[in-house]
Amino acid sequence: MTTSDGRAVLRLPTREIPVPASVSEQAQAILALGPLAPTPQWPGLDDPDAWRTLIAELDGTALRMAPGSGAPAGVEEISVGRARVFVITPEGIAPGDRRVYLEIHGGAFIQGGGEICRVRGIDNAHRVGARSWSVDYRMPPDHPFPAALDDCVAAYRALLEQRDPGEIVVGGVSAGANLAAATVLRARDEGLPLPAGVVLATPATDLTEAGDTWQTNLGLDNLLTPSPSPLLYAAGHDLRDPYLSPLFGDFGKGFPPAILLSGTRDVLLSDTVRLHRALRAADIPADLHVWEAASHGGFLGRAPEDDERTREIRLFLARCWAV
Amino acid sequence: MTTSDGRAVLRLPTREIPVPASVSEQAQAILALGPLAPTPQWPGLDDPDAWRTLIAELDGTALRMAPGSGAPAGVEEISVGRARVFVITPEGIAPGDRRVYLEIHGGAFIQGGGEICRVRGIDNAHRVGARSWSVDYRMPPDHPFPAALDDCVAAYRALLEQRDPGEIVVGGVSAGANLAAATVLRARDEGLPLPAGVVLATPATDLTEAGDTWQTNLGLDNLLTPSPSPLLYAAGHDLRDPYLSPLFGDFGKGFPPAILLSGTRDVLLSDTVRLHRALRAADIPADLHVWEAASHGGFLGRAPEDDERTREIRLFLARCWAV
Repeated sequence: MTTSDGRAVLRLPTREIPVPASVSEQAQAILALGPLAPTPQWPGLDDPDAWRTLIAELDGTALRMAPGSGAPAGVEEISVGRARVFVITPEGIAPGDRRVYLEIHGGAFIQGGGEICRVRGIDNAHRVGARSWSVDYRMPPDHPFPAALDDCVAAYRALLEQRDPGEIVVGGVSAGANLAAATVLRARDEGLPLPAGVVLATPATDLTEAGDTWQTNLGLDNLLTPSPSPLLYAAGHDLRDPYLSPLFGDFGKGFPPAILLSGTRDVLLSDTVRLHRALRAADIPADLHVWEAASHGGFLGRAPEDDERTREIRLFLARCWAV
Repeated sequence: MTTSDGRAVLRLPTREIPVPASVSEQAQAILALGPLAPTPQWPGLDDPDAWRTLIAELDGTALRMAPGSGAPAGVEEISVGRARVFVITPEGIAPGDRRVYLEIHGGAFIQGGGEICRVRGIDNAHRVGARSWSVDYRMPPDHPFPAALDDCVAAYRALLEQRDPGEIVVGGVSAGANLAAATVLRARDEGLPLPAGVVLATPATDLTEAGDTWQTNLGLDNLLTPSPSPLLYAAGHDLRDPYLSPLFGDFGKGFPPAILLSGTRDVLLSDTVRLHRALRAADIPADLHVWEAASHGGFLGRAPEDDERTREIRLFLARCWAV
């Protein structure tokens, strides 16, 4: 049996997958909920008004579900180029502590800006335990590629005026991890020094979506389903451009140590392990962590597995900043 | 929808999974072959004669498919306790080179002994580039648990009479990785010093088979399917005994640095990442590597991805032996 382009096909029968007993009770409870992904009627790529309406709806829902800001933090807003950056200092971080986590938010390239960026940025800064710059980058439909990347690179460049590169770690989740990796690739290509490390959580590294787990984990992943939003972001640019799909970057030219995190049910597991292999092929130190039965969103921050993920990121940051 | 024990169930429809374009051409060719697993009529656990006949058949097939012995190697047979050990010195290893890879062969706890152990041991010694002790341990139906483990621990103990523990790395694939991990746990519990490292390739770490990928990757993995052979091996012992299912070991009591290797289609991906998490929870240095679309058997040694796996193992060994 083959596809229309002659590719062999494996036919899997209908299957019933029980909630595994191999994860924490909290994670089992999340998995027992079944699919959590919003499956809106996606607008056509040529209908910006419909996208604006949809994004406002999705952002409204996301904001209602956003984590509380947790412990107190100082938040300052600065302008960098054409974007706003939230400079977040969790309580307990000494004023003279020069380390900065440059956080690039997720949201499928279309969501997560504005107030969500601020609230999630505060939450993330507490979790990683570091002063953070959270970039409220521009997004489609009004600002397609490379606007978001321009803003993230501008933020990194602005940070380098205040900090040594070894004091900076760049990181993100999902589309934010895509932008984090692309930011580092482009900064390197523009002759900027590399940061001390990169945190890539369930990264979208290949916008052509050739990864096997886009097929094998479809329906198993309780959060991520196919969406045209990456195409809205790419706006007709070649999806294999490394600034859109960092998997295709030339890592032999240099890349900082990286930590990559995913789950066995993550549709982006392939994107994660393929980038891990590409980094390792170039002898870049790169640590891979994969959680049992975790989807793209992990366990929504409600399970001990999510705390383990935070712990690995903190250990990675401590190593980056110990040099 | 729930299972008979009340567990929520996710129902997946029939699916057609194309061979992914995200792996090497050689790997695509392997995947295009479809299922490669032998699916014999498994005998009842109480029918040793039928098992002997089946194992002889499976071993005959395996021997015909075994790799050539490659470059020349010196092979010496020694007796350790009640088992034979092949001491394999690949050409190019200096006589005074004291490093030894204690190799514990795979084969679902029932296969891979005798001549297959010798031939595969030579192949493995060349791949890892080290003198190897390949343990031809006793197996069911005549020698169930703990005979195999007794033999592997005896080999480690014999090796410690000739070598410093830092000169030894223990490793295996599949059931061999189960025994490698169990050997280290039991050696530790018996007060022996830990080896310099452990290589665990697509390890069976939980013989209760609670891992999620036993469900999610079933049918996607082209090699491994459920079999009663672990039960034949366990012979009624508690499957949660750490010497049978090393995942349940107490790693806080000590374990050497480990490398764990699997694939996104491996039914033992869960066994692999769960052990990785258990080691990391105990702050054991443990490197995880997962190959895109690779099943339990990788790509049968015929794809560049398999060479990458060998390269990671060699780099790990170099680090273990550099200390």
